[in-house]
Amino acid sequence: MSTVGATAALARFVAGSAYGDLPEAVIRESRRCVLDHLGLLIGAAGHPAAEIALAEAREEGGEPQATVIGYGERLPVTSVALVLGILSHVLDYDDTHAVTILHGTGPSLAAALPLAEQRRMSGRDLIAAHAVGFEAGARVSRAVWPDHYDVGWHMTGTAGTICAAAAACRMLGLGAERVVHALGLAATQAAGHRVHFGSMAKSFHVGKAAMNGVLAARLAARGFTAAPDGLEGRRGLFGVMSARADPSAISEDLGSRWEIFQSGFKPYSCGLVTHPSIDLARQAIEAGVRPDEVEAVELRVHPLVPELCGKTDVDTGLEAKFSVTACVALMLVDGRAGPRQFTDASVRRPAVRELARRVRASADARIGLGEARGLIRLRDGRRLSEHVPAARGTPARPMTDAELREKFTELAAPRIGREAADHVAALVERLEELDDVSELAAAAVPRASAAAAFA
Amino acid sequence: MSTVGATAALARFVAGSAYGDLPEAVIRESRRCVLDHLGLLIGAAGHPAAEIALAEAREEGGEPQATVIGYGERLPVTSVALVLGILSHVLDYDDTHAVTILHGTGPSLAAALPLAEQRRMSGRDLIAAHAVGFEAGARVSRAVWPDHYDVGWHMTGTAGTICAAAAACRMLGLGAERVVHALGLAATQAAGHRVHFGSMAKSFHVGKAAMNGVLAARLAARGFTAAPDGLEGRRGLFGVMSARADPSAISEDLGSRWEIFQSGFKPYSCGLVTHPSIDLARQAIEAGVRPDEVEAVELRVHPLVPELCGKTDVDTGLEAKFSVTACVALMLVDGRAGPRQFTDASVRRPAVRELARRVRASADARIGLGEARGLIRLRDGRRLSEHVPAARGTPARPMTDAELREKFTELAAPRIGREAADHVAALVERLEELDDVSELAAAAVPRASAAAAFA
Repeated sequence: MSTVGATAALARFVAGSAYGDLPEAVIRESRRCVLDHLGLLIGAAGHPAAEIALAEAREEGGEPQATVIGYGERLPVTSVALVLGILSHVLDYDDTHAVTILHGTGPSLAAALPLAEQRRMSGRDLIAAHAVGFEAGARVSRAVWPDHYDVGWHMTGTAGTICAAAAACRMLGLGAERVVHALGLAATQAAGHRVHFGSMAKSFHVGKAAMNGVLAARLAARGFTAAPDGLEGRRGLFGVMSARADPSAISEDLGSRWEIFQSGFKPYSCGLVTHPSIDLARQAIEAGVRPDEVEAVELRVHPLVPELCGKTDVDTGLEAKFSVTACVALMLVDGRAGPRQFTDASVRRPAVRELARRVRASADARIGLGEARGLIRLRDGRRLSEHVPAARGTPARPMTDAELREKFTELAAPRIGREAADHVAALVERLEELDDVSELAAAAVPRASAAAAFA
Repeated sequence: MSTVGATAALARFVAGSAYGDLPEAVIRESRRCVLDHLGLLIGAAGHPAAEIALAEAREEGGEPQATVIGYGERLPVTSVALVLGILSHVLDYDDTHAVTILHGTGPSLAAALPLAEQRRMSGRDLIAAHAVGFEAGARVSRAVWPDHYDVGWHMTGTAGTICAAAAACRMLGLGAERVVHALGLAATQAAGHRVHFGSMAKSFHVGKAAMNGVLAARLAARGFTAAPDGLEGRRGLFGVMSARADPSAISEDLGSRWEIFQSGFKPYSCGLVTHPSIDLARQAIEAGVRPDEVEAVELRVHPLVPELCGKTDVDTGLEAKFSVTACVALMLVDGRAGPRQFTDASVRRPAVRELARRVRASADARIGLGEARGLIRLRDGRRLSEHVPAARGTPARPMTDAELREKFTELAAPRIGREAADHVAALVERLEELDDVSELAAAAVPRASAAAAFA
């Protein structure tokens, strides 16, 4: 690969990796990603951020090319990609590349699903688009990590655009030369600042990544041009968007080592770095602790936890997702930390507020990012010492198929009914046999207005 | 202003600056920008980059909200904004903020024109949207200059998104609170890498700036949220996209000092930094020099000239736009350097190629960016020493109304006919009296397929 630039190497990989080239384990993991993604789309339908984006898309109108999953209506592909991208991320519940905090499935599938539907592609095509999109974006995120993230870029907005473009190129069946241009057009649209975490703009980043990736691929398919070295060229993505970048992260073992195995599913719908602390609270519950017994919780956590999720005295569900103290309190009170815990009403409950005030999280550089240690003091004087070496859902402790299915059902059943949810899950189980991916969208039709759920 | 953040200060300015608040000189300059912009849209119609983007937009379809100027067909506002943005920039002929190389009119008007048409706004509204959009983007570009540009951002892609969002907010009549969100949504979409200069992606940056700015304003109008400090906040645009940023550039004399007076129109349709050298060649012609007399041209230029426009032995019109040697040769041979000079056929003429090889441009740190010095050696042994202290079109040596009108006619008449061109120019002259901006789009209807012109 030494004489081939990063953009060209990645383009060859994207153009050359069809379903038949994928290892069985990648296919299996990709299928799990599709199920998780569909659950998120259906479960998030009705969220105000998606409602606003959809209202805007409706007003512009256009050809009914694909279905807004979770809603059932049909719009042009780029509009659908925008809304699906928002839906995939707005619950903060989507799968996460443990090395670079890229949520790679959201933008990949938000781009691939509507294109697949428009073009009546198969389940195998969808799997290939997802696997290749995820890999391409994760490779780019590795190349720019950590400086890119540290300075303030939202990885799923930036590298997510590469995910989406690569997935879309696969769907359109572009040759490597066209993919070079598509990757360049995607790279030069990459955007999203972390200052917006906690506002609707965060999920907008993912919607725009999907939309922009589709646009990049479709324009390239028609002959639109970009520089041949959009990633590694001087004043290309690497140079402009990272103080240090490692272009070799693109081509090293490309096609033989897959980044998807570094990605995990989220068991809790909140900031990833809170998860080890939530697991610690869960261990305490499983050891018999009741919330009214708890005097105080003293956590030792990775320094990124207070930096990213240090909010205290939160007043909204969205704030609580990025407050490790609120997350721990919710788990102690409810025994879970899913979307129903992160509503405004839920986090304003006095029991939750009071307990959250008795949780302290101290940064400790000796604690890993997937790890937590804590002392739980009970009112009767007992002290429980807990240790979580690896959070549930991380690659070291993956969610089982049954757990993923339960998460899916919990998200989808309230919206489309248990029967339809089971049907969608069954379709995903035999995704490789689906001749036309449109079946998925047709099966995921909501029973009533989705917005009511978030009212 | 000390207690108000940059985003809030800019939002107040945008929300609070209607036509009646603008100084007469700003209005006059804005009107000149509208004329120049319309000439570019009409003259660039048919360019392959615009054709491809338009084909894509057509396939998605949608409500006929506004006119693609230069084509006559109607599409949704964001699609129109994309195509107009591309058209405004693809000839490399659009007005330029001399301090920061921002082409502020393109994204401002590409966003404002379709919105004005959709909402049947007046000429005064259009002027206000342009003036405010230009100012907002130029303020942001000042705040991040020069590090932002030096590292490789295309200013008209990044700050251009702010131009477009601010112009769109003005068109939608948003209050300051909503504008804060719109500016945040615009900032977090800001994108465009300089590695793509020389490809279609360069003008795509401007199209996307316009499209994304419209989207930001429209979403904010519906209640979509972003961080309140999208510009100055830690990990907002300033911190993420510039090694050093000066937030005070936003609020200093805001509303009393106008950046539009730092902007100039381009007399030549090529890289701005080539202009002093082209002027130098023009002076030689005016002194009686004929191209076949020239033995060699030895230029001393600002160091950015070879960096940005150092290409030699060019083979396409696009390459020639960024080749100071080709630009000088074209001026010497044709006596002008407009779009007709920068076609592939034109730059491949043997007389142009041979003369270009006899031009040398040496970097000299003592030469200003708008300046050039040169020695022209003639075959008969004579040596002409020329000096251009300020290029034509720069704020120090502005194009006259008559020169602008001539440039407009040269661009517009071949497409829509002399009569229609005169009619459009007359409408712009009394722009403040136009009750409905749609008249402009209706007047600028092409006579035949635009693509033929670039075939």
